[in-house]
Amino acid sequence: MTNLLKNQIIIDGLEYCNWNREILEDLWKGGITAIHATLVYWENTEESFNKIIEFEKLISNNKDIICHAKTSQDIIDAKKNNKVAFIFGFQNSAPIANDIYLVEKFFQKGLRFMQLTYNNQTPLAGGCFEPKDSGVSRFGKAVIEEMNHLGMIVDLSHAGKITCLEAIEFSKKPVAISHANPSFFHKSLRNIDDEVLKKLVNKNGFIGLSLYPYHLKNLGNCKIEDFCTMIRKLIDLIGSENIGIGSDLCLNWSDEVVMWMRNGKWTKKTDYGESKDKNIKWPKQPDWYQKPSDINNLFEAMCLNNINENIAEKIIGTNWLNFMKNHF
Amino acid sequence: MTNLLKNQIIIDGLEYCNWNREILEDLWKGGITAIHATLVYWENTEESFNKIIEFEKLISNNKDIICHAKTSQDIIDAKKNNKVAFIFGFQNSAPIANDIYLVEKFFQKGLRFMQLTYNNQTPLAGGCFEPKDSGVSRFGKAVIEEMNHLGMIVDLSHAGKITCLEAIEFSKKPVAISHANPSFFHKSLRNIDDEVLKKLVNKNGFIGLSLYPYHLKNLGNCKIEDFCTMIRKLIDLIGSENIGIGSDLCLNWSDEVVMWMRNGKWTKKTDYGESKDKNIKWPKQPDWYQKPSDINNLFEAMCLNNINENIAEKIIGTNWLNFMKNHF
Repeated sequence: MTNLLKNQIIIDGLEYCNWNREILEDLWKGGITAIHATLVYWENTEESFNKIIEFEKLISNNKDIICHAKTSQDIIDAKKNNKVAFIFGFQNSAPIANDIYLVEKFFQKGLRFMQLTYNNQTPLAGGCFEPKDSGVSRFGKAVIEEMNHLGMIVDLSHAGKITCLEAIEFSKKPVAISHANPSFFHKSLRNIDDEVLKKLVNKNGFIGLSLYPYHLKNLGNCKIEDFCTMIRKLIDLIGSENIGIGSDLCLNWSDEVVMWMRNGKWTKKTDYGESKDKNIKWPKQPDWYQKPSDINNLFEAMCLNNINENIAEKIIGTNWLNFMKNHF
Repeated sequence: MTNLLKNQIIIDGLEYCNWNREILEDLWKGGITAIHATLVYWENTEESFNKIIEFEKLISNNKDIICHAKTSQDIIDAKKNNKVAFIFGFQNSAPIANDIYLVEKFFQKGLRFMQLTYNNQTPLAGGCFEPKDSGVSRFGKAVIEEMNHLGMIVDLSHAGKITCLEAIEFSKKPVAISHANPSFFHKSLRNIDDEVLKKLVNKNGFIGLSLYPYHLKNLGNCKIEDFCTMIRKLIDLIGSENIGIGSDLCLNWSDEVVMWMRNGKWTKKTDYGESKDKNIKWPKQPDWYQKPSDINNLFEAMCLNNINENIAEKIIGTNWLNFMKNHF
């Protein structure tokens, strides 16, 4: 950790890791205040409740350095207590199936982020990989109202464009795109075009910038300077208050897991997701973003690349915290 | 039973009843050869497997007069053995959630019909009550291929128009709309317009005509003559081979059940479905169609209303059997 960041709030708006002590210590030594951790993608209700129990055990077994945050105050307290706060999130709405009452049940267990879709259509909305995007359905609207009411963040990562526009408009509370990049930086089904970015920020929504190779210019060979240039352009487009990092780091998983993320159980064929060359392995991360603590590299690079240090500090964490304070 | 129909195949393409001995005896005495019985609407995977067990018990407890049909030969055998064949169907895809492998598991348990949607959007397709119809999704296409492969009938009742058109086009085997009427007879979100009807029959698909009041001209006051006139018009439009009856009779349920059908667990508000006057009770059936055996009234009325007796016999059952022979 650079000395600069010792007292700084650092929040990673999305990671999906097969957590072990080593990665947790990297988070802790890296001075990360909080992360939004993905628990499930395609899992059904029962599997998702079981995953929460697993995470509760993980936290209990490592309670000297991590804790479970259910409120933004818990994040602030974690900082004081020198712990990394875990915020629970689902990257899909599969766990709630057709049952709106499950939203509150998962909320009570600490769920604070839920995506409406993961690439594919759900009963709630359209996914970014669908040839046709339904927008937000009848059930989708009911669930957004429920999430607004409870204080659970509507996450539009992996949603289609029409779904994004409709959900931003419909939600009474600002929504997040926890991990994606602007399309002007790299065209991909997962990245976000200017129209959506502008509408998002007009409703005080939030975007966490992704370090997942398929979302980067030149993929795993993306230069840190280019990433910083993208941030500067994005600030010009939507200002500096509604931007954070959602690294989408996926660590310590076998290659089967990336294929499972793409295919779940929805097809008997093979879907290669964002890989144009049908790569069945995890894509190569940029050299400068290999582990959670590398968010510090990014902070330094932003400062070196004409991003004001105060703004870089906000992007590295304070903006996320302010956004979360609006919800929980 | 009229003597006329004693040797006739009679098939009702959809009923949703809270079965008891009295209703089963009405089926049996009425000379019904087979019915497609709805097992579930909103139920999840486990609840749906449990419902199948309930139906297996029902059949076992009444095996003197009913049996479970898994093939069209089972239907023919049931006729010989003087039993009513039950064909299992789901009025929604909720039971398979996101899991294509569940299609075969339910098939193995005897499931032979499955709707892609029930009014609302699902991961597979768009529902007829959605303001925007997604058409068939990526998962929807995978499931249709699987159903084609297994010999499970794709049922488009309660689907949106775009979903109907796309599924008819995409499915390698003819699809069914097991219970609905033409829109020209009565405009409703559930009824089917001429474009879909023509496309359906061009691909050798099938429609089962409904006696559910919200699908009828003048609702529960619909005259049997008007129903027969509708059938004649429909024959003019699509011929007489692809038409059957799917009465949609819902017997012996409390009023809570009609509200549950409309609302499942997808909303905390109240949805009134097809009832324009917010009726929370089961709608009144026409006098001439109160129980399963009343299909015989309809047969007689068809003959009295200028529908050739041979054609009326086909509509009352043989057409359905021929259609089913294409699948199982």
